[in-house]
Amino acid sequence: MGIQLITVSASLLQGEGTDEAAQAVAHLCFARGLPIAGRQIIGEDEGEVEAALRLGLERGQLVIVLSGSGGSAGEPVRRALSRVLGLRLILNEKILQALQTHYARQERAMPRRAERLALVPQGAILLETAEGEPGLLLDTESVAVALLPLDPESAVTLAVNQLFPLLQERLASRLTTLVRTLKVVGPDIGEVEERLGDWLAGRADCTVLCLPQLGEVWVRITVRGSAGVAEAALDEVEAALSERLGQDCYGRDQEMLEAVVGRLLIDRGLTLAVAESCTGGLLGHRLTEVSGSSRYFERGIVTYSNEAKTALLGVSKAILTRHGAVSAQCASAMAKGIRAKAKTDLGLAVTGIAGPDGGSEEKPVGTVFLALATADDVKTERRRFRGNRSQNKWLSAQFALDLLRRHLL
Amino acid sequence: MGIQLITVSASLLQGEGTDEAAQAVAHLCFARGLPIAGRQIIGEDEGEVEAALRLGLERGQLVIVLSGSGGSAGEPVRRALSRVLGLRLILNEKILQALQTHYARQERAMPRRAERLALVPQGAILLETAEGEPGLLLDTESVAVALLPLDPESAVTLAVNQLFPLLQERLASRLTTLVRTLKVVGPDIGEVEERLGDWLAGRADCTVLCLPQLGEVWVRITVRGSAGVAEAALDEVEAALSERLGQDCYGRDQEMLEAVVGRLLIDRGLTLAVAESCTGGLLGHRLTEVSGSSRYFERGIVTYSNEAKTALLGVSKAILTRHGAVSAQCASAMAKGIRAKAKTDLGLAVTGIAGPDGGSEEKPVGTVFLALATADDVKTERRRFRGNRSQNKWLSAQFALDLLRRHLL
Repeated sequence: MGIQLITVSASLLQGEGTDEAAQAVAHLCFARGLPIAGRQIIGEDEGEVEAALRLGLERGQLVIVLSGSGGSAGEPVRRALSRVLGLRLILNEKILQALQTHYARQERAMPRRAERLALVPQGAILLETAEGEPGLLLDTESVAVALLPLDPESAVTLAVNQLFPLLQERLASRLTTLVRTLKVVGPDIGEVEERLGDWLAGRADCTVLCLPQLGEVWVRITVRGSAGVAEAALDEVEAALSERLGQDCYGRDQEMLEAVVGRLLIDRGLTLAVAESCTGGLLGHRLTEVSGSSRYFERGIVTYSNEAKTALLGVSKAILTRHGAVSAQCASAMAKGIRAKAKTDLGLAVTGIAGPDGGSEEKPVGTVFLALATADDVKTERRRFRGNRSQNKWLSAQFALDLLRRHLL
Repeated sequence: MGIQLITVSASLLQGEGTDEAAQAVAHLCFARGLPIAGRQIIGEDEGEVEAALRLGLERGQLVIVLSGSGGSAGEPVRRALSRVLGLRLILNEKILQALQTHYARQERAMPRRAERLALVPQGAILLETAEGEPGLLLDTESVAVALLPLDPESAVTLAVNQLFPLLQERLASRLTTLVRTLKVVGPDIGEVEERLGDWLAGRADCTVLCLPQLGEVWVRITVRGSAGVAEAALDEVEAALSERLGQDCYGRDQEMLEAVVGRLLIDRGLTLAVAESCTGGLLGHRLTEVSGSSRYFERGIVTYSNEAKTALLGVSKAILTRHGAVSAQCASAMAKGIRAKAKTDLGLAVTGIAGPDGGSEEKPVGTVFLALATADDVKTERRRFRGNRSQNKWLSAQFALDLLRRHLL
């Protein structure tokens, strides 16, 4: 019997937004060896909540309900829960006081209606942190139900600091599930599957999956076994797969390509500047998502016009006339130009056609040239992507980062 | 009775990735007045799929299963489906032929195992497009089940071009649900709720929700009624809410702030260049996500170091020494500098502390200065954000775009 997650959000049924809170909680549970057995998403409707709760309780020993926006778990959820568990709704003094304090601080009278926010099923334990929204726990002999806020940060904080400690005994299990994701850039999913071959058939204690992502492939290893044994098995499988993937595997789990590149730059003591055209700033943006990137990232220049390419990067008019702004020659001149102007060790450049307009027969939409300039060399690469504008920008930045990564290795 | 969506993906139970295909299909259904009544997410396990199918069929007249990675709907799903509907699995000649062609093209013998991919429940209708992955439809008298691929684009293409036309009669309904989202930047959610006041209580045919987003607030209007009447009601509610939101409402539905700004620049015939520090390229990236942005976006400069600010934007050493790189004076000099260098009508600049390091008592993490330079004026703004590094970067770009938008209005 596992954990069942229920998200109460009509927006998600309408295809708006992503179920961030459920993903965060699922990730957290999984990382602790507490796998989620199933997820449901329903609207803010008392009847639907009741049906989902009944189903969740049939299937799991712990049901986590993510609900409410801008407050604790909503009224229909608490009413449905009291009915399903056969508990009366009573006024919680602590919640009531918090509400009164809230209104007093604003020097406003508390509306009569607000009192209903303090009505909770009898026996509910209030989950709260210094900051963020509160939650509730109903812990009966046979089952437990937790109500957590839809705000992912509050939900995770409450789960880690209050819910898991309170449910420690119930959740203890002798079997543990471990997962590791190897991240691969370069070969496509077919090539990765080919290389992993027999591993994809899996074995009794372990499954290996290949998952396509934009501009990369994730190889997910899942191992289930008793504590101690599972860890060793996971390491063994990872070592075997890593050998087959070689340098195409850039990292694992939460590691981002931009962070891996950043670490390599720090290790080698090198600085970097970038010149972008079609990526419009995305390459610099990704590099600077990494905390501490100011140690190696000196500047970025986004030259969307030919004039800017000449004025800021010293790309000659002859190159632009003869080969065009989307050419290996232009990429090379941009990389050399930014490196010289910024006085950095490395210069990385991207120029291409993100689309949807601007393509030609010779250079269709998605054609991109990458260049990396070092003290004594410039390396260029021609690529052809087949995504939409946004995907082509992402893929251009991705393979520019990978060009740099492979140079640093 | 509505539509039930089932996603088969253990990754989602582990908190990895987002349920993109289900969101895309839900959005599509909703936009056509075919609301999704519930969603389930389960792992790639025949027993779980069977249970989810039984539940879905109890609750809905159409169940859409999103499943499979790198292929058509997976084997366990088809087996579970044949059992739930009481149909035999038979070899589909068309799928078998496609498989044989696939292997023949690669000059490889088709593995015996691959034949199983052609086994489908008797009576299944093959859904296919020229490109992308195929799907299946089982249309019985009482219920219909569709298997669609997990790739969002393929799933949507199949739904629009094949599934909906095939199920037209079953899905016809006299009531329609319409949704419109007003997007608000500037006031926080409390201020927006205050302004909308009585509208949030809703009325019989319409609900109004305030949804917090990073750096903006979405006001969602949902109207249900008969065709013709619902459209008029939606327009009426939108007009009433728009009046209360005024210029703080920048657009609606799929409109992005960067696209709205772009349209205003084109309308006014103005060009733009940007100078970024803490956003690291994100501002340029967002502006260039808009197709056709080369008409007004001339260049972007990311000056991560003080040297770059002086060399590329002409920020005086005196400003950097006296006020620091994170100051109104520096932002102002950056905006004026980029405008002069790029010879554009407008120069937009951002400098700040994205975090997690670099904060001080006077200028804590999240402190950001924005500046907009025009021919005869520079406007600066000081902001304080309280997110993580990535959120602070996003918020900085967001309010820089909004500063520009309000100037253009």
